[in-house]
Amino acid sequence: MARVKEFDEVKALEKAMHLFWNHGYDGTSLQMLEKAMGLVRSSIYNTYGNKRKLFNTVISHYEKTVITQLMMSVEKESDIRKSMSKMLNGEINLHFNKNNPGGCLIVLSVLEKAQHGDESTKLLESIVKKMEKFLTKKISEAQNEEQISTAVDVKSVSLAIATTVVGIAVMGKAGFSKSALQNMVATTISLLDAS
Amino acid sequence: MARVKEFDEVKALEKAMHLFWNHGYDGTSLQMLEKAMGLVRSSIYNTYGNKRKLFNTVISHYEKTVITQLMMSVEKESDIRKSMSKMLNGEINLHFNKNNPGGCLIVLSVLEKAQHGDESTKLLESIVKKMEKFLTKKISEAQNEEQISTAVDVKSVSLAIATTVVGIAVMGKAGFSKSALQNMVATTISLLDAS
Repeated sequence: MARVKEFDEVKALEKAMHLFWNHGYDGTSLQMLEKAMGLVRSSIYNTYGNKRKLFNTVISHYEKTVITQLMMSVEKESDIRKSMSKMLNGEINLHFNKNNPGGCLIVLSVLEKAQHGDESTKLLESIVKKMEKFLTKKISEAQNEEQISTAVDVKSVSLAIATTVVGIAVMGKAGFSKSALQNMVATTISLLDAS
Repeated sequence: MARVKEFDEVKALEKAMHLFWNHGYDGTSLQMLEKAMGLVRSSIYNTYGNKRKLFNTVISHYEKTVITQLMMSVEKESDIRKSMSKMLNGEINLHFNKNNPGGCLIVLSVLEKAQHGDESTKLLESIVKKMEKFLTKKISEAQNEEQISTAVDVKSVSLAIATTVVGIAVMGKAGFSKSALQNMVATTISLLDAS
């Protein structure tokens, strides 16, 4: 029975995640959460505390699932051009995956900063910064391995790729096509070719 | 008197613009609008129709002022590397200008798509697409003038720069420093150096 309960909780959490991801924080009402999660308000409060705490739990869940999955596929790839392509294409696929609401929950929530208190803001900013640091680490390692020239400005190229990753979530939402964004990836990756 | 009235209307509209820019659409209540605009609900309805119509008026005002101003400074610059630097630095300055709420109203609103109907969505998407087309036109002209090599993939480089522009709004909101983002600009501009 424990396993069944755990499964249901994850399912309910993912329903909440999709609501926040689609509608934003203030755009997601308790009524919408009750309906999607199949829980009455008192059960939501008993399990998660309140809407704010539920949101923080959702953000951590998004990090542990969606983002970690993407990072792991990037981490596995030792060729830096291939790994950065995976990162960018991963973000494109995240948007165009029909099971998702589109865009990125972290990108939306960062922009809705004024709707969040200090705790959520810290959590959200740390996730974006971790992503950028992860790219810096990968590119720096590749430079040490002589996969890329010492002429590559690791800090700026990492930030440029991280900025493109978050920008993709916006451009996808603004209606740019998957193929146009995919074609752009090679251009962004060419930043690693400085010599 | 007409001139005074016009001035006040623009001022009220900009107060509304800053609210939506900071809090998002659903995050901005009528009470917040009344207080910031110094108008009672009936005056807002009489002047703008309703919250949705006020939002569309605000978006058009943002395009005519904030975005047009940026485009014009970019348009005036005939050197393509300098003009694209102006575009990227303009977006950085937009975020770090202390008179603004940070980020970009269009980027936030595009991500809050689910909060908007067809009319607002069309308006928002058209603004992002116009920005990208404007970059394509500038880069294409520069290629015809032999400022950049024929090896530059105009479509992909334009989209990469446009994606970086919207991404800057996110990275600024996520707490990246002005100097780190400014240092990144030269890297993004190097996409024009393909040969």
